[in-house]
Amino acid sequence: MAQPIVLAVDAMSGDHGLSVTVPAALSCLERHKKLHIVLVGDQVRLRACLLDTAWQVGKRLSIQHASQVVAMDEPPSRALRHKKDSSMRVAVDLVKSGQVNAAVSAGNTGALMATARFVLKTLPGIDRPAIVSALPAVLHPVHMLDLGANAECNAEQLVQFAVMGSALVTAVRGIDKPRVALLNIGAEEIKGNDTIKAAATRLQASALNYVGFVEGDGVFLSDVDVVVCDGFVGNVALKTGEGIAKLIRQFMREEFERNVITRAGAMASMPALKALSRRIDPRRYNGASFVGLQGIVIKSHGGADALAFDNAIEMALREVEKNVPARIARLLVSAGLDQPLSPAR
Amino acid sequence: MAQPIVLAVDAMSGDHGLSVTVPAALSCLERHKKLHIVLVGDQVRLRACLLDTAWQVGKRLSIQHASQVVAMDEPPSRALRHKKDSSMRVAVDLVKSGQVNAAVSAGNTGALMATARFVLKTLPGIDRPAIVSALPAVLHPVHMLDLGANAECNAEQLVQFAVMGSALVTAVRGIDKPRVALLNIGAEEIKGNDTIKAAATRLQASALNYVGFVEGDGVFLSDVDVVVCDGFVGNVALKTGEGIAKLIRQFMREEFERNVITRAGAMASMPALKALSRRIDPRRYNGASFVGLQGIVIKSHGGADALAFDNAIEMALREVEKNVPARIARLLVSAGLDQPLSPAR
Repeated sequence: MAQPIVLAVDAMSGDHGLSVTVPAALSCLERHKKLHIVLVGDQVRLRACLLDTAWQVGKRLSIQHASQVVAMDEPPSRALRHKKDSSMRVAVDLVKSGQVNAAVSAGNTGALMATARFVLKTLPGIDRPAIVSALPAVLHPVHMLDLGANAECNAEQLVQFAVMGSALVTAVRGIDKPRVALLNIGAEEIKGNDTIKAAATRLQASALNYVGFVEGDGVFLSDVDVVVCDGFVGNVALKTGEGIAKLIRQFMREEFERNVITRAGAMASMPALKALSRRIDPRRYNGASFVGLQGIVIKSHGGADALAFDNAIEMALREVEKNVPARIARLLVSAGLDQPLSPAR
Repeated sequence: MAQPIVLAVDAMSGDHGLSVTVPAALSCLERHKKLHIVLVGDQVRLRACLLDTAWQVGKRLSIQHASQVVAMDEPPSRALRHKKDSSMRVAVDLVKSGQVNAAVSAGNTGALMATARFVLKTLPGIDRPAIVSALPAVLHPVHMLDLGANAECNAEQLVQFAVMGSALVTAVRGIDKPRVALLNIGAEEIKGNDTIKAAATRLQASALNYVGFVEGDGVFLSDVDVVVCDGFVGNVALKTGEGIAKLIRQFMREEFERNVITRAGAMASMPALKALSRRIDPRRYNGASFVGLQGIVIKSHGGADALAFDNAIEMALREVEKNVPARIARLLVSAGLDQPLSPAR
């Protein structure tokens, strides 16, 4: 029998808490026989939740009590200092102690990142972890980082992101030499700032498959696997993409509901519209990895429903199977980037 | 009879040159009786172009010869130094000399910005001009700036952008106190950098209708009129939006062409799909204003077709009618921002 994979699920997390996290966890357990899940949270409420299901605590499902919850708007420093028995913190502690292989949370991004970094520590050579996620693109999904953990980055950090993104894509997509691009703007003479130019020079000299600059539209329309940028730009790009997709969906709904003819058209187009809707469904892209840590932590969107949270758990499972942190560590060593940065830099 | 409005059209500009700029110019002349157009470019080729049309040089249409063309990939400094008789430069010179009210070009952004800034100079109190354009949003178009002229900006520049955007929106949309937001990222504790925080403090204290931060999705989904950001972030957001829109269009095409049932659905949905397509047609949003200059210059997308270039000419016409630079200058004075920055800053 295959080695079991054990995941901690921060069951109290997200906008919907138990009503989303528990059904998603149980659904994953049903699909993956080697999966074990530790539900972390209020044990009384968790037991009550399980009463209505076909599952009970046993070999593949356990409950780890945690008396506190980190609020969605709680400052990270406060969560770190005062919520040491929160479901978030306990889930990450379980990763640290080796009792689980990874943690999944829909909790607040800042607090989860601060907790993960404090408890798990970064890999040798990594200044700061990054947030990475797969986005839909015309040829294949593209992994973009950083999506918001580091508002300002220096060239070394961008290079670290490139290494981490490459290792992740090699692991989850099975590509030997992922194509890495730096996100930039196109206007001549103001092409990029000094940080991006310095990162480009380093990446050209590296063993990574660096293919050059890509502009905002190229992220989605060209053949690149990893797009690297600072967390401010990455977050704006991610949210802009979400905003435009919602805007088009809204316009489409308005046009199809306009009159009896357009409504009939919508009926006739249902198969294509459903397929389209599925392809751009943000729930299918839910789940962001915190990379650069000595452990696996997956962040789900706070507003995730059970289907979306299920995807985040699947992502954790895949990263455990592929041992992503060890791959990142190895690639850092082979790139000569596993040493702490000298203070001079 | 209304005062004539005279526009210079850089007829050699863009990926398609005369074949796009001349038909667009003639079509605008047909619609607007008070419009006069000066076609700037190679006079022999321009005369040849007009032979096939119902128009000839006369009271409302003239040709200004220019012997050079700025290439789409020409460095701005080279264009400025060696292309003093280019169609781009001559068109902007005509604005400076007062012979026309505005110039429209589909030429390369960097060269056009450098030329416009060198020839026309900035308004009192403006460090650098910005690029602003209207983007589709759920309630009404939103004006965003800077879209790429200034890769790095300080807080003062962001405040100047807010003033310029406000004055422009008041002029073209007739809104008394446009709602101004700063583009930012949402994660707590890393919320923005020092520049954005400083700009927020200044905007709160200003007479503008500053409504706070907006994230990437909020640009398109919330009720704001002006979104302010640096040119790097703005350019990435703009291009990301274009990329996602093209991606969805591509996915939609694939799903509708999948089989005989989906193709029949597409036929039945044609009215709604055409209406949707029209609403998100980037050609309808073509045309970006260079604001902060002592004159009006409109930049069309280089790949514009006649319909798109027509929109850029319309935009110039509107800004002349509303006297946008004078409105910006007045708002700068009333905001106490018309003085040069002290060296200490």
